[in-house]
Amino acid sequence: MENTNNVFNLDRNMKVHNFNAGPSVLPNEVLYKASKALIDFEGTGMSILEIGHRTEHFTAVMEEARSLVRSLMQLEDDFEVLFLHGGASTQFMQVPMNLLESGETASYVDTGVWSNKGIKEAKLFGYVDVSGSSKDNNYNFIPKQFTVPPQARYLHITTNNTIYGTQWSSIPETEVPLVADMSSDILSRQMDFNKFSLIYAGVQKNMGAAGATMVAVRKSILGKVTRKIPTILDYRLHIENGSMLNTPPVFSVYISMLTLRWLRDQGGVAAIEKINNKKAALLYDEIDHNPLFRANVPNKEDRSKMNVTFTIDKAELEEEFLKFCKKEDIVGIKGHRLAGGYRASLYNALPLESVEVMVEAMKYFSLKKA
Amino acid sequence: MENTNNVFNLDRNMKVHNFNAGPSVLPNEVLYKASKALIDFEGTGMSILEIGHRTEHFTAVMEEARSLVRSLMQLEDDFEVLFLHGGASTQFMQVPMNLLESGETASYVDTGVWSNKGIKEAKLFGYVDVSGSSKDNNYNFIPKQFTVPPQARYLHITTNNTIYGTQWSSIPETEVPLVADMSSDILSRQMDFNKFSLIYAGVQKNMGAAGATMVAVRKSILGKVTRKIPTILDYRLHIENGSMLNTPPVFSVYISMLTLRWLRDQGGVAAIEKINNKKAALLYDEIDHNPLFRANVPNKEDRSKMNVTFTIDKAELEEEFLKFCKKEDIVGIKGHRLAGGYRASLYNALPLESVEVMVEAMKYFSLKKA
Repeated sequence: MENTNNVFNLDRNMKVHNFNAGPSVLPNEVLYKASKALIDFEGTGMSILEIGHRTEHFTAVMEEARSLVRSLMQLEDDFEVLFLHGGASTQFMQVPMNLLESGETASYVDTGVWSNKGIKEAKLFGYVDVSGSSKDNNYNFIPKQFTVPPQARYLHITTNNTIYGTQWSSIPETEVPLVADMSSDILSRQMDFNKFSLIYAGVQKNMGAAGATMVAVRKSILGKVTRKIPTILDYRLHIENGSMLNTPPVFSVYISMLTLRWLRDQGGVAAIEKINNKKAALLYDEIDHNPLFRANVPNKEDRSKMNVTFTIDKAELEEEFLKFCKKEDIVGIKGHRLAGGYRASLYNALPLESVEVMVEAMKYFSLKKA
Repeated sequence: MENTNNVFNLDRNMKVHNFNAGPSVLPNEVLYKASKALIDFEGTGMSILEIGHRTEHFTAVMEEARSLVRSLMQLEDDFEVLFLHGGASTQFMQVPMNLLESGETASYVDTGVWSNKGIKEAKLFGYVDVSGSSKDNNYNFIPKQFTVPPQARYLHITTNNTIYGTQWSSIPETEVPLVADMSSDILSRQMDFNKFSLIYAGVQKNMGAAGATMVAVRKSILGKVTRKIPTILDYRLHIENGSMLNTPPVFSVYISMLTLRWLRDQGGVAAIEKINNKKAALLYDEIDHNPLFRANVPNKEDRSKMNVTFTIDKAELEEEFLKFCKKEDIVGIKGHRLAGGYRASLYNALPLESVEVMVEAMKYFSLKKA
């Protein structure tokens, strides 16, 4: 007899507590279902990896993934949803290539490493006005007072900053089209996504596994630059071809579809936001009250609910705490080298229980060292 | 007790005979191993999709995949092997962007749809000399008499043409750097790969699953164009970063590594070539001798051993034969709309047994209709 939920007799409750910054934890049921589809996809006698991407089997997967994004984000009809190759790093250049006319200006807010990568690529296509920046404070806040040049073709923001642990708590008001890299907080909280003109996200944090990039773009902002765009980088051609301009990253799109289904079944963005708020509150509360730890981001409003960054007050204990966590099966909490200390990523699929274990570990370690 | 070879109690011998043109059939052991790694990757307690790509767990996968390509192709030291996002369609523009100086010329041989896509993108960056073409004969042969302009920056060929079923049986001699799209016959036959300067291949036919593209490039041909190349499209930066410039398509690279290991364990390219020759001979022999069928490519030397294209002499039986095959669990043999008729793809992982079944089906159908 086949146990569809636990085909390898692996007790997933004994799994590690995975605080990886991305690629990162995925829902168990997504992994079980995908594991089975790798051997036999829906009774076809073929693996999901072996089916033609132009067959009804896969086009149904692609269409469901696109449609789930549309409904979970409640996007207006002007939006098209694409699943592309290349990661957010490809979008850094694809966005200005499609939107920024040569000789014109785009406005960027610099909130860290990822914003900077976007700025660097945009400069290859036009002028960049860095309208706001938190660089002088090692990016530990979100700039709020900044002026977007009225002639800017668009304003680009990074809604969540994985390395420094900051997050835009509200969407900036602007007259120009708003473009956002949402790689690390997409679908984690309610937001009026229709205030944006283009949203992109590498799917490997909140909506799948590495290998695909989701782009939601308003058709009305396309076709306004005069340069010749290579076929594979032209959003319009991807739209015309139903996100199947070339062989898509089949398996990554399938994992996204399963992850989006899971999110829908949890109650969608509103429901997951409640859990995400609870997880973040639990961990920040411990950091703020535990004498041994300190949050990197002083302004509570700017703290990321996805990537909680913090340090230990006694430098000599930094490594020891990591080792202690490892023993407790807590993985992925070493901070990025640019921010130091620790980083606990609390993406949608991370269970509340993992945060509870983490908080217990902090309490225990702190008492032991007091 | 766990049965590591057949975790879903699925009899893989009862699987369909998968002649898909790509994505296509994969070795059973690759699928079993990957299915397990989706739940727990090598005892980490995490799925292969959940591990950080900069951890030793994944860097070992990437390095083994790169190293297996190098050894299976016996590449000289000047070559670097990369696993990139984007598919061969991205290479169509990335190759000229990196190699073709503005105002200069690249030479392309036009052997069908895929060559043409390459030509179209190259024209965005410089001049294209279509040095040879089989267009006037609906691409049913490989051009052999053509002259490459001596000033050409490179000569580009498509070694195997999936749609029309042609394949270069020998590498053209040329004084300029040779570039090849080998998406549909990479690692299927012995060849002096060191005669090339750049080889690219979407991995979803002979070396993995959709979502990654292998590029083997000689370092010595890079850095010779003056244009500014976007970061993510610059081969040099991918090389500097060990093919980890951004988050790689983790799972696709893993599947490639497993598929390359499988190929090595079969005896490598020399051994698989023998089996591929046998499969192709068996099927072409049936087509040439069965009164009902006719090969698309008259010149035997130009016939693809990967994609066998043929038609049925009685047009009224075309659909019926497809239905008959479907009943026999033979899938994926409908020809591309541009070539018509049938196409049977015989990639590395297709068992000889599937070709035997196909040939039996042709014999039976032909007798029944005689």
